[in-house]
Amino acid sequence: MSNSTRNNSLITFLSDFGLCGGYAAACEAVLASLAPDARVLHLSHEVGVGDVRWGSLVLARLAPFCPPCAHLAVVDPGVGTDRRPVVLVAGRGDLLVGPDNGLLMPAVTALGGLREAWLLDSNELRQRAGLQIRELSATFHGRDVFAPAIALLTSGTDVSAIATPLKPHGLVDVSPPKLSEAEGGLVAEVIEVDRFGNVGLSARFADCDFGGDLVRVEVEGEGLTAWDARVVRTFGQLNSGELGVFEDSWGQVALALNGASAAQLLMIDRGAEVRITKREER
Amino acid sequence: MSNSTRNNSLITFLSDFGLCGGYAAACEAVLASLAPDARVLHLSHEVGVGDVRWGSLVLARLAPFCPPCAHLAVVDPGVGTDRRPVVLVAGRGDLLVGPDNGLLMPAVTALGGLREAWLLDSNELRQRAGLQIRELSATFHGRDVFAPAIALLTSGTDVSAIATPLKPHGLVDVSPPKLSEAEGGLVAEVIEVDRFGNVGLSARFADCDFGGDLVRVEVEGEGLTAWDARVVRTFGQLNSGELGVFEDSWGQVALALNGASAAQLLMIDRGAEVRITKREER
Amino acid sequence: MSNSTRNNSLITFLSDFGLCGGYAAACEAVLASLAPDARVLHLSHEVGVGDVRWGSLVLARLAPFCPPCAHLAVVDPGVGTDRRPVVLVAGRGDLLVGPDNGLLMPAVTALGGLREAWLLDSNELRQRAGLQIRELSATFHGRDVFAPAIALLTSGTDVSAIATPLKPHGLVDVSPPKLSEAEGGLVAEVIEVDRFGNVGLSARFADCDFGGDLVRVEVEGEGLTAWDARVVRTFGQLNSGELGVFEDSWGQVALALNGASAAQLLMIDRGAEVRITKREER
Repeated sequence: MSNSTRNNSLITFLSDFGLCGGYAAACEAVLASLAPDARVLHLSHEVGVGDVRWGSLVLARLAPFCPPCAHLAVVDPGVGTDRRPVVLVAGRGDLLVGPDNGLLMPAVTALGGLREAWLLDSNELRQRAGLQIRELSATFHGRDVFAPAIALLTSGTDVSAIATPLKPHGLVDVSPPKLSEAEGGLVAEVIEVDRFGNVGLSARFADCDFGGDLVRVEVEGEGLTAWDARVVRTFGQLNSGELGVFEDSWGQVALALNGASAAQLLMIDRGAEVRITKREER
Repeated sequence: MSNSTRNNSLITFLSDFGLCGGYAAACEAVLASLAPDARVLHLSHEVGVGDVRWGSLVLARLAPFCPPCAHLAVVDPGVGTDRRPVVLVAGRGDLLVGPDNGLLMPAVTALGGLREAWLLDSNELRQRAGLQIRELSATFHGRDVFAPAIALLTSGTDVSAIATPLKPHGLVDVSPPKLSEAEGGLVAEVIEVDRFGNVGLSARFADCDFGGDLVRVEVEGEGLTAWDARVVRTFGQLNSGELGVFEDSWGQVALALNGASAAQLLMIDRGAEVRITKREER
Repeated sequence: MSNSTRNNSLITFLSDFGLCGGYAAACEAVLASLAPDARVLHLSHEVGVGDVRWGSLVLARLAPFCPPCAHLAVVDPGVGTDRRPVVLVAGRGDLLVGPDNGLLMPAVTALGGLREAWLLDSNELRQRAGLQIRELSATFHGRDVFAPAIALLTSGTDVSAIATPLKPHGLVDVSPPKLSEAEGGLVAEVIEVDRFGNVGLSARFADCDFGGDLVRVEVEGEGLTAWDARVVRTFGQLNSGELGVFEDSWGQVALALNGASAAQLLMIDRGAEVRITKREER
């Protein structure tokens, strides 16, 4: 594994630990103990509890904006079972450490594809980290396995010293969001509702042709309301109460209002499906 | 622009991005890429969505406690419209980067007044930053314009290389909060309700003479309830249920209860107006 | 006071300030001004308002995972009264700075016991810190006393320059949580409900003998429902809806469901008492 292009002083960290109870801080304390020179960039700890899919999306979006570095990600509902603790090396040179439950895979793809996969050996790891006196918990491998592993790996320990090679084809992946063509348009899954009430969809904006500026938006399975919407570049182009379709900053098709929440207007959340079709001129 | 007194390794960061979706982390990732030695001090990302006024207050309060440094601030409801991306230099030497919508101006005043104003050239900026291959989004200039700009400026790029001089008099400012004298006292706007339920008002404590320790507090426009209150130094001097008037840690007149929320007692929030008058001795 | 084993570039920080209003950031700004080379590890700022007991538990749990360093802790409902500002030195070499209200004591115990206690002299401190021109607030000693103190102490100032020795026996401590034996088991206090809905109890798992894998769980004072539960190692071993008893990652007895909230199932929160007894085989 080449370290040549990786910034070993930077560790990003994403989890579903929240900021209340100190779980994320416990991991950062371990990093400070074992990799005192590393800097920690917190991506998010507000991933929904056990929401591997959302965590994997956030990681895949953010990691490419970081310099090649090490990424610690812990959304781990299967902790303590036989799900595997892994180290993945991406094409760009980034290291990713976390559970083998799909969380890391979209980021690996976004970072240039999988170059190597390794299975962490918790016992070897803990001896190397000098943690042999503290027992491995069954429920907090973020602190007891993943943080020590990434700290060692960014401090000079070779991955082969604490892990064994894995065949890539057995790695768990997350399922892709739903997306299909429809007559005169598409049906896409809501993959994000952000703090501003913008509704991010599973379709790439660059792949879509709405046949003009005016479209119709329907929430699938509801069958009642159809919203007129306009394709715009940014919120500020919308009139008050007017629904807009735009390319969001991740390149996805998204819905927005100007200064209000499109998600509240449409009463939808992640997982819902939205039909967008060409609007007939009257 | 003199860098002589500025700490170029420190960048403060304030936004209305929240901590869930990764917007703030995306900006920090850009900082880590382009200014790898800079340290980021997060002031707050919990500014209300689009709440330029509150964001400007928090920034103006916190910036003077930092060493002279660079301040990144993004509360930007007009992103993608013709609102201008600017760099301001304050009298103390601090750099402020963000949208020209008033967000930066109270901080500039608190940091010694405006010394220079510059209009960012997004194209020049993105070429310098090596971001020409990634398209400028219409909705996330925090990541695509402001973070790259401040990263370059703290890493040796001269502001004249990525911006053109601006006439200061055209800069947008926020309107000051309401404050007026009243018979036997004052009427002040609620500018803050903090986590402890303390109610911060628009009047400076040092400017007020309450004519004694005992005052009367009324919520304007309600006309029903008048609260007896006592002027104190700190919460611990108040009896249970007793309303207190004190000088808060920013020098403002504020209302508090001991171990409970004055905002809940008075059922008020930011924007409300409060009348404080001398209490007649009976 | 020996600095020989302490990492003086690391300051941990815990408070009940939340992340909205900028109180925590104001303290960090002071740290950046007075100890520009120090790194800040935020343990939590989401401690409940004035909840000294919970703050003390989080600090005591996290501090031992950090390298020996300086710990800033501010949950301070008595700010501005005669509660004392203190510096404590723990057996392991850590410094702890905060109010003498019990907040620091469990951490001192977890870090090897009390070695020294000092009373901060706010006036001397503020002159040393160059803060004499800014008035000491009555309500924000985090920014005005504790942060300047820990910044100086980690930047070479000897504690004797800004504090006077204190007799240890007068230090305020928090009361321990309730815990008692019961016929065939124990009655323990709920000391934590985490983000995952896991219910942490006041009993150490290693001290308990449940007489088998099957136990009965009752919420004290309710007298209605008794839950069958199974002693397991981790969540993933539980069937859907099955209540589990396990050793949490801090070594405590805890209750959990697999992928759901045990706290919601039992409708309990911190301070409640839970009876766990051997289940009779039928």
